[in-house]
Amino acid sequence: MNESSGIREYIRDMASLIERELQQSIPSSWAIPAPLRDSMMYSLMAGGKRLRPILVLAAAESLGGSPEAAVPAALAVEMIHTYSLIHDDLPAMDNDDFRRGKPTNHKVYGEAMAILAGDALLTHAFYSVVQSARKHNIPADRVIDIVEELSRLSGAPGMVGGQAADMLGEQGVTKLEELEYIHLHKTSDLIVFSLKAGGRIAGATEAQLAALERFGTCIGLAFQIQDDVLDLIGDESKLGKPVQSDVKQQKVTYPYFIGVEASIAKAGELTREAKQAILAADFPRPERLLELADYLMKRDH
Amino acid sequence: MNESSGIREYIRDMASLIERELQQSIPSSWAIPAPLRDSMMYSLMAGGKRLRPILVLAAAESLGGSPEAAVPAALAVEMIHTYSLIHDDLPAMDNDDFRRGKPTNHKVYGEAMAILAGDALLTHAFYSVVQSARKHNIPADRVIDIVEELSRLSGAPGMVGGQAADMLGEQGVTKLEELEYIHLHKTSDLIVFSLKAGGRIAGATEAQLAALERFGTCIGLAFQIQDDVLDLIGDESKLGKPVQSDVKQQKVTYPYFIGVEASIAKAGELTREAKQAILAADFPRPERLLELADYLMKRDH
Repeated sequence: MNESSGIREYIRDMASLIERELQQSIPSSWAIPAPLRDSMMYSLMAGGKRLRPILVLAAAESLGGSPEAAVPAALAVEMIHTYSLIHDDLPAMDNDDFRRGKPTNHKVYGEAMAILAGDALLTHAFYSVVQSARKHNIPADRVIDIVEELSRLSGAPGMVGGQAADMLGEQGVTKLEELEYIHLHKTSDLIVFSLKAGGRIAGATEAQLAALERFGTCIGLAFQIQDDVLDLIGDESKLGKPVQSDVKQQKVTYPYFIGVEASIAKAGELTREAKQAILAADFPRPERLLELADYLMKRDH
Repeated sequence: MNESSGIREYIRDMASLIERELQQSIPSSWAIPAPLRDSMMYSLMAGGKRLRPILVLAAAESLGGSPEAAVPAALAVEMIHTYSLIHDDLPAMDNDDFRRGKPTNHKVYGEAMAILAGDALLTHAFYSVVQSARKHNIPADRVIDIVEELSRLSGAPGMVGGQAADMLGEQGVTKLEELEYIHLHKTSDLIVFSLKAGGRIAGATEAQLAALERFGTCIGLAFQIQDDVLDLIGDESKLGKPVQSDVKQQKVTYPYFIGVEASIAKAGELTREAKQAILAADFPRPERLLELADYLMKRDH
């Protein structure tokens, strides 16, 4: 088994674990109006790469921690990511009818229920994080750190702020720094959260948390640049969506500012920087994180 | 000073305290796109009774705790309440143009920003709760209990579930039990959270938490019945909104099911039950809670 098939297998196994756990992440004993529960589960189980929860598990493993204890935080980050997609797709936001080949939440359940399902998933993420203390005996003060970081990195100074800047930017992003602000918050912040949450659960030192933060910021930005590049020159059949949609929507992108070649080089440089941050700190089992950085760089969808 | 002016003064003082603290509840050092911050603050500072945060403070006091340590949880519950109003007012939900005499959030900032401001306030509530551990040395395991309860009582099995049931019910609530389910979750759950959070911060016993829960469930339901009654027979100038809007909107209410007289009697009975729950448990300083229950019962707006 070569390295590349090893990491693909790892990703597949971790994604199945996450999906099994997501399936039972909302207690069945809770009385919830059926359309609300259905609407939440529809988007939660709609597939996707499960990249963020896999990063939570991989970060815990990189420190020699058990992936099991990191599962509640992994589910939480996927709930946050899912709610953000539901709300982003709404008519008042991006007005998308399809996501990953399926009708978007509001096309199936109506706008009002989609708003509420997003609110409920966002709220439930914090319930899930707390289960790491309840079910896996993670010390309460560590869980408090994770709750604080989740609220900051997914809130106004983090993901929601990035989303707001992106929306406001549609009226004219003119500088590369503005685009970078959007990507850092809209994409990197939740990736940084994922890595640090996994790290915290496994008892990371401050130096290791700083390395995970650097790693996350770099691969998050590289991921976003890759997305922009794939949209320009990718293979439609692999992407599962039409290429050049950014050009058609007149969205500014990395290639728009610095060209395709320089964008590809930049993503490569960020990936090297990410790996370097991990290698410079003292991780007992850094392999999966390093492989994931390379895997994300080489992806074609 | 008689009891009634005493409680009015208490409410006024606590509401000012809450408003001063809300004003600085989002760290000024955080980089947040200005329209997002403005939109969040617009609704957060738009007035209202501040009933829920006052209940947090009063519950802490009833156990001999300091109101200061309860402030972060009090702000959190007002953030949750505020986000729910922003999202409820959206065109896809209740489609309201005015709230408390001012244009609703989406009328000022647009629908997309209103959705994001709601998401950001919801998220920030959890940041605020955690500050009780950071700034007031509340033990981490108690804060974990509060986070878990906030996510449950404001989420799918709580407030959001009540909101979903209310929306679905517009297609025909036919039983009093269905109406009670809506009220219990849409209104009482967050009131119960407020009381128990204040109690937990002040170190309440399980028996005291159970009494606070009973008290909250009863005054929450009484509050909602009062609202229905005031809408039917209240004074428009005191309510600040047109009466009989429920009838015009064909909304089912307590008076619709059991009549005005029986509704008033029911609210009185619930208020007595609420006070009895507190009196039967061992609260060192129960006065404010008892006065608040009476005050809510006698209100004319």
